[in-house]
Amino acid sequence: MVKRLELAKSSQKTLLNLTPNLKEKVLLDMLEEVKNAKFEILEANKLDVMAAKSANLNSALIERLTLDDKKIDAILASLLDTARLKDPVGVVLDGWVNYAGLKFQKVAIPIGVVCVIYESRPNVTAEVASLCFKSSNVCILKGGKEAKHSNLAIVSALHKALVKNGIDKNVITFLDDFKREDLINLIKMDKFIDVIVPRGGSELVKFISQNSSIPVIKHDKGMCHIYIDESANLANALKICINAKCQKPSACNAVETLLIHKNIANEFLLNLANEFENLGVEIYGCEKTVAFLSKQIPNLSIKKANDESYDTEYLDMKINVKIVHNLDEALDHIERFSSSHSEAIISENFTNIERFLNEVDSACLYANASTRFSDGYEFGFGAEVGISTNKLHARGPMGLSELTTYKYKIIGQGQVRK
Amino acid sequence: MVKRLELAKSSQKTLLNLTPNLKEKVLLDMLEEVKNAKFEILEANKLDVMAAKSANLNSALIERLTLDDKKIDAILASLLDTARLKDPVGVVLDGWVNYAGLKFQKVAIPIGVVCVIYESRPNVTAEVASLCFKSSNVCILKGGKEAKHSNLAIVSALHKALVKNGIDKNVITFLDDFKREDLINLIKMDKFIDVIVPRGGSELVKFISQNSSIPVIKHDKGMCHIYIDESANLANALKICINAKCQKPSACNAVETLLIHKNIANEFLLNLANEFENLGVEIYGCEKTVAFLSKQIPNLSIKKANDESYDTEYLDMKINVKIVHNLDEALDHIERFSSSHSEAIISENFTNIERFLNEVDSACLYANASTRFSDGYEFGFGAEVGISTNKLHARGPMGLSELTTYKYKIIGQGQVRK
Repeated sequence: MVKRLELAKSSQKTLLNLTPNLKEKVLLDMLEEVKNAKFEILEANKLDVMAAKSANLNSALIERLTLDDKKIDAILASLLDTARLKDPVGVVLDGWVNYAGLKFQKVAIPIGVVCVIYESRPNVTAEVASLCFKSSNVCILKGGKEAKHSNLAIVSALHKALVKNGIDKNVITFLDDFKREDLINLIKMDKFIDVIVPRGGSELVKFISQNSSIPVIKHDKGMCHIYIDESANLANALKICINAKCQKPSACNAVETLLIHKNIANEFLLNLANEFENLGVEIYGCEKTVAFLSKQIPNLSIKKANDESYDTEYLDMKINVKIVHNLDEALDHIERFSSSHSEAIISENFTNIERFLNEVDSACLYANASTRFSDGYEFGFGAEVGISTNKLHARGPMGLSELTTYKYKIIGQGQVRK
Repeated sequence: MVKRLELAKSSQKTLLNLTPNLKEKVLLDMLEEVKNAKFEILEANKLDVMAAKSANLNSALIERLTLDDKKIDAILASLLDTARLKDPVGVVLDGWVNYAGLKFQKVAIPIGVVCVIYESRPNVTAEVASLCFKSSNVCILKGGKEAKHSNLAIVSALHKALVKNGIDKNVITFLDDFKREDLINLIKMDKFIDVIVPRGGSELVKFISQNSSIPVIKHDKGMCHIYIDESANLANALKICINAKCQKPSACNAVETLLIHKNIANEFLLNLANEFENLGVEIYGCEKTVAFLSKQIPNLSIKKANDESYDTEYLDMKINVKIVHNLDEALDHIERFSSSHSEAIISENFTNIERFLNEVDSACLYANASTRFSDGYEFGFGAEVGISTNKLHARGPMGLSELTTYKYKIIGQGQVRK
């Protein structure tokens, strides 16, 4: 592994002098190569899916793992999109002249070597590699073992485009023969790696954050909340809650807990429970919710929520519902259980919305919209490396500019300090 | 210690709703309280200095430790300066509307709880505490043991200003009875602390970076270089080299190694060696430098440089001098030995300057100016927490805006994701 990392690190120089034009061309070549390799990629994917099935991996994982024409098209679309994004390197972020006449420029530069550790979705391989390339970063990819064949087929296509353009293929380094015990070594390789981005299970993210000597940009779980205020437009609230739970329950920006103001709880809960029943969403309710709904809808299947449920990212058609006395109780609940990813308030009360947006300490705070918008594309960033739950450097959707850092260029005419 | 950290963390809420006006008033009250406590602070400092002397600590440390009227005035000036800086919290960093009509605002917010670990200079206590307060961060200060009495006297004055304004004094938490073995626990307290800023010896910084589960913003050593190009204005070069070495040799932005183009080496070295001899700067020269200077100035005391010298941050009236064949050799040397803090090129050649500024991977890169400008005040930021040698979040002088992170506030009218 050390040899691979050395090669990756030393390939960094290749990226320094690529023009934006050439980078765009290489990304379009990657698109062509992935298109050409479609058959090989799908065949490789079949091997992974078969292995996953015979290992009895869960169906959500197998779904994420499986590639089809539509997912390949999505990879191609994302490569096209990234090719056409504005080059983030060299952007002048700030500039000024100091008292002594020195001219300062704060300029965006690549981070250097970015290591992304991720799980089953093979499309992440192409997305992350292309974003890193566009931002002139070397990437080191550590994908899930279960997606190995698919990932290798994709990386092989990307490498063809690099080689065709005379670029050192180590700028996209895929760690294939990676063993579980290699992880602890990898996250100590601060000599070769500038940042680690772990995407995946909470335990993995926690292990890496606590043991890495390399700076970590966590992509931890999304324990997202929606608070429905007394003043909410309840039709909007219903639509948003259903969208945030059901449009893609496996996403980290899906809502896991609804907090409902007591004064509108009865009216709202009745509509909500009926809709959720039709859609197949299982409710974990607080005591009051269970009491009320069991009485109103006698055959409703409803479970009792406890602190464990409030702390569970279901990623499934399950949801916690809690009735609260007021905004303060909702804020307290969110402070206690949120993973600081995304939360929403549904309200027509200006002061309550202001308080919610100011006081909740999460990356993305919504007033009257679905938490499902926490995504690079929805934000307008284009493809994303993921959704950071870090507090420093990158928060929320991590796109191209979050893959840069900066330096100061300072021009003088012989100035010395007095 | 856990109890202190809990109190610090929970005092964070106090800071959320302070107006910029009130924060400014509190900072001006801090200034008054430090002024009033001047006698107590100087008396306390005498105890520390006496203890340091009887423990035979080195003179540079004792100098940094010692407070006098001038240093107290500097503290007062820095408090005034910080009070009057623009409030960094709530600044709208970016804003746009997405395809669905959602209104996005990217807003600067405090990081939360900032822990600064520093050494002997007691003025750091007031500077860091006031910057954290201005940016609505709780600070946890871990000062050097040798400055304990001085630090406690300063913190006590700052606390008076907080209490006078009804603000929880735990927002400035000074860890006084801190034992060496507490460090390893402190840097695992990710539950209470959002970022650790270690300022001080390389060993300490390395230990913290490698063992902390909390994100670290390193303030590591300054192994700074100046390259004097063939095309340099040699009068400027001489002035800049002397300033960068001698104006404050103990500073991290002082130069430690000069790299001189061979074609101007003889002429430049002769002037440089004479000036350095007068000023008492000891030269560690490469083979050619030693050979040339020993011949030209027979009584010159000069040592031979080796890889160890090139890797040594002298912080003293000592300097490495190496003759290089060209810019490339200078870039290679810098890549190998630099701590990525500050480097300068002295040149009139446009292309060489461009290459130097683009290719050297350091926080602050100067063309024709002294590296001594790498400082929050000189940059125009006002007081600084220090000079970050991190690549992420904050690079170079870390002022008020580097003490903030951001959140996204997103306003909708019922939007859901399609």
